[in-house]
Amino acid sequence: MPPPNQRRRAQLADAAIALLARTGVHGVTHRSVEREAGLPAGTASNYFRSREALLVAVAERIGELHYADMDAAGAAFEPPAGSSTRARATDLIAASLLAAATVHRERYLAIFELRLESLRRPALVEALAALMRNSVAFTAGHHAALGLEIPPEAVPTLVTLYGGALFTLVSSPPEEITPELAHQLAAGIVRAALG
Amino acid sequence: MPPPNQRRRAQLADAAIALLARTGVHGVTHRSVEREAGLPAGTASNYFRSREALLVAVAERIGELHYADMDAAGAAFEPPAGSSTRARATDLIAASLLAAATVHRERYLAIFELRLESLRRPALVEALAALMRNSVAFTAGHHAALGLEIPPEAVPTLVTLYGGALFTLVSSPPEEITPELAHQLAAGIVRAALG
Repeated sequence: MPPPNQRRRAQLADAAIALLARTGVHGVTHRSVEREAGLPAGTASNYFRSREALLVAVAERIGELHYADMDAAGAAFEPPAGSSTRARATDLIAASLLAAATVHRERYLAIFELRLESLRRPALVEALAALMRNSVAFTAGHHAALGLEIPPEAVPTLVTLYGGALFTLVSSPPEEITPELAHQLAAGIVRAALG
Repeated sequence: MPPPNQRRRAQLADAAIALLARTGVHGVTHRSVEREAGLPAGTASNYFRSREALLVAVAERIGELHYADMDAAGAAFEPPAGSSTRARATDLIAASLLAAATVHRERYLAIFELRLESLRRPALVEALAALMRNSVAFTAGHHAALGLEIPPEAVPTLVTLYGGALFTLVSSPPEEITPELAHQLAAGIVRAALG
């Protein structure tokens, strides 16, 4: 179990994620985050010295949550025996897009709000670049562990198109997000990456 | 030449586009838009009855500008004789991604700000849905006029992945945007659309 300090930081970051998704970056302050988390005034500034430090912690927290979910999805993934790399990659990416755009929608909305905000706030640029580097490395390792033979040089295109498709999905009205749409986009992304 | 009323509306919408890109949606008000356009206080409310009406007009203005640029790019496009549909589509999409992420960066940042804002502001949903429908129809017509044989059923995937890749590009630090990156993404998008 993480130490109490780390749990409290995560609790504040999770509250900031919910606020980012609901109100946009403008609604995120030390005060609003404490209120959202149900914690007393002053708590957030004990953990984050500035609003910028809070936003950077949110980017890091989203990375943690994303990798944990990808690991869980990989562990739960049971491809049909004898299915091709292409079919397995498509199923895995479709499931991942759909979960990200529905169950974990807040989290990805929050990261896209931060991405636009990073253009006005240089401290966020490095936090988001680190998240992108880790995603590329993690995705490559994940594919290897699952026995998906995706050439390493295809991974950056795959990650960029995946991220872009996810932006389109999470910023669409929720009723437009269907398993069929996720599968169609996943098949396109796999064709893009594998040729 | 458009009538003076229409010119003034476009001038205010253009000022709002610049503000959206620079400050995010929160910085866009009747007052800030008038100031950005160098027009007297009260001008913006003569043209847009609410802040929402102003944001909807911005989405429409971006559509106008986008179609005009796509037409110009199509007219200027001279593919090498005998080049394949795939090679011509890749060159055209790479050029379009690069221009959108550099020369016209403000405009696409503005539309992505509006897309996130639309989740909190239902009037924007229909304006953006209309823009997407028009883009799909316009893209299909554009391809036909250029002699690109792209099957109509591939166009929605192409438009979604193009829009997503563009989000990733315009929200990246400007120094990371290169012709090589645009070409690599365009090639991926064409593989995704054409198989």
